[in-house]
Amino acid sequence: MKHYLQFSDFGADEYAYLFERAALIKRKFKAYERHQTLTDRTLAMIFEKASTRTRVSFEAGMYQLGGSVVHLTTGDSQLGRAEPIEDSAKVISRMVDLVMIRTFEQTKIEAFAAHSRVPVINGLTNEFHPCQILADLFTLLEHRGANPQGKPDPAFLRGKTVAWVGDGNNMANTWLQAADILGFTVHVSTPSGYEVDQSVAGIRSSGSYKVFANPMDACAGADLVTTDVWTSMGYEAENEARKKAFNDWCVDQDMMRAAKPDALFMHCLPAHRGEEVEAEVIDGPQSVVWDEAENRMHVQKALMEYLLLGQQG
Amino acid sequence: MKHYLQFSDFGADEYAYLFERAALIKRKFKAYERHQTLTDRTLAMIFEKASTRTRVSFEAGMYQLGGSVVHLTTGDSQLGRAEPIEDSAKVISRMVDLVMIRTFEQTKIEAFAAHSRVPVINGLTNEFHPCQILADLFTLLEHRGANPQGKPDPAFLRGKTVAWVGDGNNMANTWLQAADILGFTVHVSTPSGYEVDQSVAGIRSSGSYKVFANPMDACAGADLVTTDVWTSMGYEAENEARKKAFNDWCVDQDMMRAAKPDALFMHCLPAHRGEEVEAEVIDGPQSVVWDEAENRMHVQKALMEYLLLGQQG
Amino acid sequence: MKHYLQFSDFGADEYAYLFERAALIKRKFKAYERHQTLTDRTLAMIFEKASTRTRVSFEAGMYQLGGSVVHLTTGDSQLGRAEPIEDSAKVISRMVDLVMIRTFEQTKIEAFAAHSRVPVINGLTNEFHPCQILADLFTLLEHRGANPQGKPDPAFLRGKTVAWVGDGNNMANTWLQAADILGFTVHVSTPSGYEVDQSVAGIRSSGSYKVFANPMDACAGADLVTTDVWTSMGYEAENEARKKAFNDWCVDQDMMRAAKPDALFMHCLPAHRGEEVEAEVIDGPQSVVWDEAENRMHVQKALMEYLLLGQQG
Repeated sequence: MKHYLQFSDFGADEYAYLFERAALIKRKFKAYERHQTLTDRTLAMIFEKASTRTRVSFEAGMYQLGGSVVHLTTGDSQLGRAEPIEDSAKVISRMVDLVMIRTFEQTKIEAFAAHSRVPVINGLTNEFHPCQILADLFTLLEHRGANPQGKPDPAFLRGKTVAWVGDGNNMANTWLQAADILGFTVHVSTPSGYEVDQSVAGIRSSGSYKVFANPMDACAGADLVTTDVWTSMGYEAENEARKKAFNDWCVDQDMMRAAKPDALFMHCLPAHRGEEVEAEVIDGPQSVVWDEAENRMHVQKALMEYLLLGQQG
Repeated sequence: MKHYLQFSDFGADEYAYLFERAALIKRKFKAYERHQTLTDRTLAMIFEKASTRTRVSFEAGMYQLGGSVVHLTTGDSQLGRAEPIEDSAKVISRMVDLVMIRTFEQTKIEAFAAHSRVPVINGLTNEFHPCQILADLFTLLEHRGANPQGKPDPAFLRGKTVAWVGDGNNMANTWLQAADILGFTVHVSTPSGYEVDQSVAGIRSSGSYKVFANPMDACAGADLVTTDVWTSMGYEAENEARKKAFNDWCVDQDMMRAAKPDALFMHCLPAHRGEEVEAEVIDGPQSVVWDEAENRMHVQKALMEYLLLGQQG
Repeated sequence: MKHYLQFSDFGADEYAYLFERAALIKRKFKAYERHQTLTDRTLAMIFEKASTRTRVSFEAGMYQLGGSVVHLTTGDSQLGRAEPIEDSAKVISRMVDLVMIRTFEQTKIEAFAAHSRVPVINGLTNEFHPCQILADLFTLLEHRGANPQGKPDPAFLRGKTVAWVGDGNNMANTWLQAADILGFTVHVSTPSGYEVDQSVAGIRSSGSYKVFANPMDACAGADLVTTDVWTSMGYEAENEARKKAFNDWCVDQDMMRAAKPDALFMHCLPAHRGEEVEAEVIDGPQSVVWDEAENRMHVQKALMEYLLLGQQG
């Protein structure tokens, strides 16, 4: 049994399969063709942090697969308080087929997975957000990396450059893992004090990422420029300090001009226009943020199916 | 693509279809016959105000149609705070087939609809409550306006009189629109300071409604007497002032006697017996409030089906 | 139409059917065989107290039966505040096929049931928790009381002994009813001031239960030792006083040694190791708490099916 707790849980071959499968699933969705491979299966979603995108994408996705969803919310950081996480994992995983968790520490989701009888999916932790990067890479391949048959071709990624501008957060950590596995390079530029921590991502060599003090330098020649809000969920108390520190890390037209002419812009949303990104960029022609959001659903459908049924077709 | 944001979004022909379709759907429900026309479709419900009736009627209704439901709650008035409403509309409408919203200002639901790829239904705003009036009219036709074949006949409504006693609120505004479209007259009696505002309903002529200072006069000769709680959701701070102002606008046996002998009583519930209505009336033989509540589900099933599939059969 | 508001609502024959049916339903679940007898039916769940186990077991169970679920939460003790319980019962039971309620006073669920058009299930009240005892007895039969064909045999229960150690709460009351109906004996040992109240259970003779001052004596020769948290939901204010009073009512290895050599240990969870039970017991070889938790789902599926369709097969 496999879990999906961080991006490095899967290898390049598995990602190649998932991208191709997600493309098939998306095509069928757009054609109103049923794709009900998980009939009679139930997904439990446990949210310790609020969510709209993750909620809707997993829930609507599971319904489209013919399955059902139990949506559990806890107050802030309750998992492990009323009973040991191990007990919750044992009980819940006896009744459902799959569990998605959005929580704080990665150690919590790991403890749950260690005692779960069914696969566990990371729907965002303080350390990682693998489902989002899965969607982002799929979106990049969809727009720039299709083979002549119109299918996503992961070989496209080799040698490409992704510029990460902003916080050295769970998204940045996950980009580092993805680059290491799929053969591209991440250019990371963060304010001082918000650097990405290589040890969290567990990357041994630094060949797949480079650090830049100036975000303009990080964007130079990039195939994709991407960022996130300055204050991620769980760090709201630092809001004012972060606004000052991040002031020069706003993705603007100059940064996009430094990137390749056909570079894309992505953002995992919600976005704060005028803070981490200028409206001209996120609402401009290089932005693919709405496709990126929609693709969360399609890649997660492929992911859930893969965890429960293995490779299909 | 059509939305249902206010009663005036549809014309008389569309209402004739919806009443007939709802009657069919209700008959099948009572006979435990499946009517699954929306298999594989997902409804997102966004609630900014609490709800039991709207929640259960839409959710159970969608399940009966074979579809599924994602139920999103926000704190008070959150829509538009974490991100622009336009962004939420773009993202959510990429993943689901239909959206129902209960919110505060009508402008919010209009902004959402303007950027949505899928139909949007008004599940109550400060200005309008079209689904409730749809149910009320269906209930009136069911009890008094069936043709010889037992089908609801909207022609029955022409020349009839509905007495609205109480607050000039979203229900009153919607009654004004309904009367204008379907050819009946609304007698409105509200306390001073709580008048209905014709400009909100967007009614050009006042031919379809008449204002009465005395609620007894409004009820005289009415085919239907209806009211609502004195303090609607969102106006709780005015509770004490409203209790004083509305003291004479309690629907009692005298008002029912002023109406036609076979007049019906309706209330969208929850009801406060002894405030806006006497127990003898709401629990008496002329009251059809339980049918009215149940019919929310049947008319909304017809509505959802119509918005997604157009006229059937 | 039947409700399931307390254990005594059913007779021994009905329990024999439910145990056998639950065994069939569980076997099919384990084999990934569909068992969709409630397609097109909707369960409304109303929670006035928080829940994970009851929530997941009912919701996943209903989905597996092919039905759907509307999950309603209220703030603490809201049922009956916005409108009379009778009104809520009339409205909700017009739109769904089955209602499960977790609330405070038993009188509330009785008021709801009295005005409901559809069956009502007690998902825990201050007085009773029949679904839990149904699962516990099924688990006991599964582990110790199968007939030669491997089916649960309720005759096994006759003359057996269940030791209840701890609070004279809703679980204890329900055990008293179960023993009376199914022919076994309950040994109850509670701290002074927390005694079980025979009149709540409505037991006429005390032949089916015995009270012991010392929990060791209650456990002597028992086939099953079971307990619950010292402070049940709704009694949190008494927490410190209870910790003192219950200090000697911790199920430990000595108590288990006083019971029969093949005695089982059960706990409805969540558990507080070191309080009402030692880790060595709940995590030891005699504990069947995870099967017990899972069996909530299987017996409740049998229960819901029975309430809606009667005896099958």
